[in-house]
Amino acid sequence: MSGPHRDEIGALVLLCAMVSGEETIEKRSAKQPLRLFCGWFCPFAQRAWIALEEKGAVYEYVAIEPYQEDASKPGGYSKNPLPLEEKRRRYPEFMASSPKGLLPAIESTQADGSVHRIYESMVCVEYVEEALDGPSLMPLRSRPEARAKVRIWCAYIGEKIIPHFYRLLMRETADEREAEKKSLLDGLLCLAQAMDPVSADGGAFFLGDEFTMVDIALCPWWTRFRSIAGTYRGFEVPRGATWDRLHAWGDACENRPSVARTIVDQSRLIANYTGYADSSATSTVAQTLAAKTT
Amino acid sequence: MSGPHRDEIGALVLLCAMVSGEETIEKRSAKQPLRLFCGWFCPFAQRAWIALEEKGAVYEYVAIEPYQEDASKPGGYSKNPLPLEEKRRRYPEFMASSPKGLLPAIESTQADGSVHRIYESMVCVEYVEEALDGPSLMPLRSRPEARAKVRIWCAYIGEKIIPHFYRLLMRETADEREAEKKSLLDGLLCLAQAMDPVSADGGAFFLGDEFTMVDIALCPWWTRFRSIAGTYRGFEVPRGATWDRLHAWGDACENRPSVARTIVDQSRLIANYTGYADSSATSTVAQTLAAKTT
Repeated sequence: MSGPHRDEIGALVLLCAMVSGEETIEKRSAKQPLRLFCGWFCPFAQRAWIALEEKGAVYEYVAIEPYQEDASKPGGYSKNPLPLEEKRRRYPEFMASSPKGLLPAIESTQADGSVHRIYESMVCVEYVEEALDGPSLMPLRSRPEARAKVRIWCAYIGEKIIPHFYRLLMRETADEREAEKKSLLDGLLCLAQAMDPVSADGGAFFLGDEFTMVDIALCPWWTRFRSIAGTYRGFEVPRGATWDRLHAWGDACENRPSVARTIVDQSRLIANYTGYADSSATSTVAQTLAAKTT
Repeated sequence: MSGPHRDEIGALVLLCAMVSGEETIEKRSAKQPLRLFCGWFCPFAQRAWIALEEKGAVYEYVAIEPYQEDASKPGGYSKNPLPLEEKRRRYPEFMASSPKGLLPAIESTQADGSVHRIYESMVCVEYVEEALDGPSLMPLRSRPEARAKVRIWCAYIGEKIIPHFYRLLMRETADEREAEKKSLLDGLLCLAQAMDPVSADGGAFFLGDEFTMVDIALCPWWTRFRSIAGTYRGFEVPRGATWDRLHAWGDACENRPSVARTIVDQSRLIANYTGYADSSATSTVAQTLAAKTT
């Protein structure tokens, strides 16, 4: 672990000591009509998880372990995904909701007995927004231009930021890793420039005081930029000027109770990513995202 | 031009003789507070264009020509994009709405003088849906699971169908082209299987009677599968079994008045794609989509 990141990781460990994804998993283990198929390690699943916590929903957290067992790895699992037929055998309800076997998925049994089955992380977030009561995850419908801005930058995060995180972990040469680091920082800077100013009340979300889908879209990775990319690639988001807007945003997100309740033990997560660090990552998401060239 | 496609292209030419994108462009040329920055050749822009026509909106069609002039090419333009600074010089209002210089974009001046500026094709469609009165382009909000289904398949179209169309045009070897053709057909078959059955009233849209964003997301390419991919790559969507659901869908879309009013002269479009056929395509969209490996 290189020097400059120790403080940041220390702060993260502290954050996790205060609030715990693991405690939330335990608390949400009882059977409910609304079920989230989730994985403690998965940032895509964390998006849907945050949305449910933000809404104050009553839901069941259903733990899915989509990787093959490997006693030699920390936590007891490899990053080799189970074959689809094996996923269907172990997790038939999950697979009924997510035909490709990707996390997250939602199963919601209605009063009339009908069942809604939803997959794709941001589609799950939008479903939670539209199907459940509670705080809105989007600007009001009377502000269609603000809603459009949220959608534009959700797409941007998926195309121009997240893939570079996975490629930074998977690329093998120093030059390639430097190029990915630069692309990741370029993407983050462009996002920071698009953020509304911090509000008079100190609201530092993408839209200032409003916590919306665009915050949810990125914040699971913000934590991982420091814990995973910091540990294994010496990745660090600079300070000063526009970068400070991004750090203020990240702090605001991680201190949001709904987000904090989904942040798992980072040392466990760091151990879980060992496979990525030695370029042996084979998870479907990592392979797909690393292969994209845009 | 190979044999089997002549009838299909003949039918397309007939379709264009009845209704004309060119007539709509002419009809919508007057200055209005709501402006669509569009290109007659651009299927992404056509998505936003269809949404506006479907809503019965009063709007101004602002023609953008983002490619460099080349007198040797049909229509007088190459497929080499203008440099961004040149786009900014020629089209300052368009570039204010679409910072990357990609079509489509919307500029909407409000009663209070404020201006909404929107880009990204599906974000423009959602903006039109939310900002304007007229027929809904989504299932009602009381059906969040149907809205989620529309969103899941919009994403699928963007990831698993459209990139293969561009790669089919750009790949150079017969083997690579066959592989892309197969991937394109696999994607279309999977979409067809996800469609609701044709309704009792004969409604053949993705959700049966309801014309929604998921229909808008693909139908600009459906026309091009036959005119462009048919002409230059002998591409043909099979008939029979599940394929018939797809053809019924395509017919329903192309006969929808809002869609028909945006379909331009296909012989002009075929000439415009000459550059793609000889593997010299350099448009930003084609290069980006062809480079993606998923």
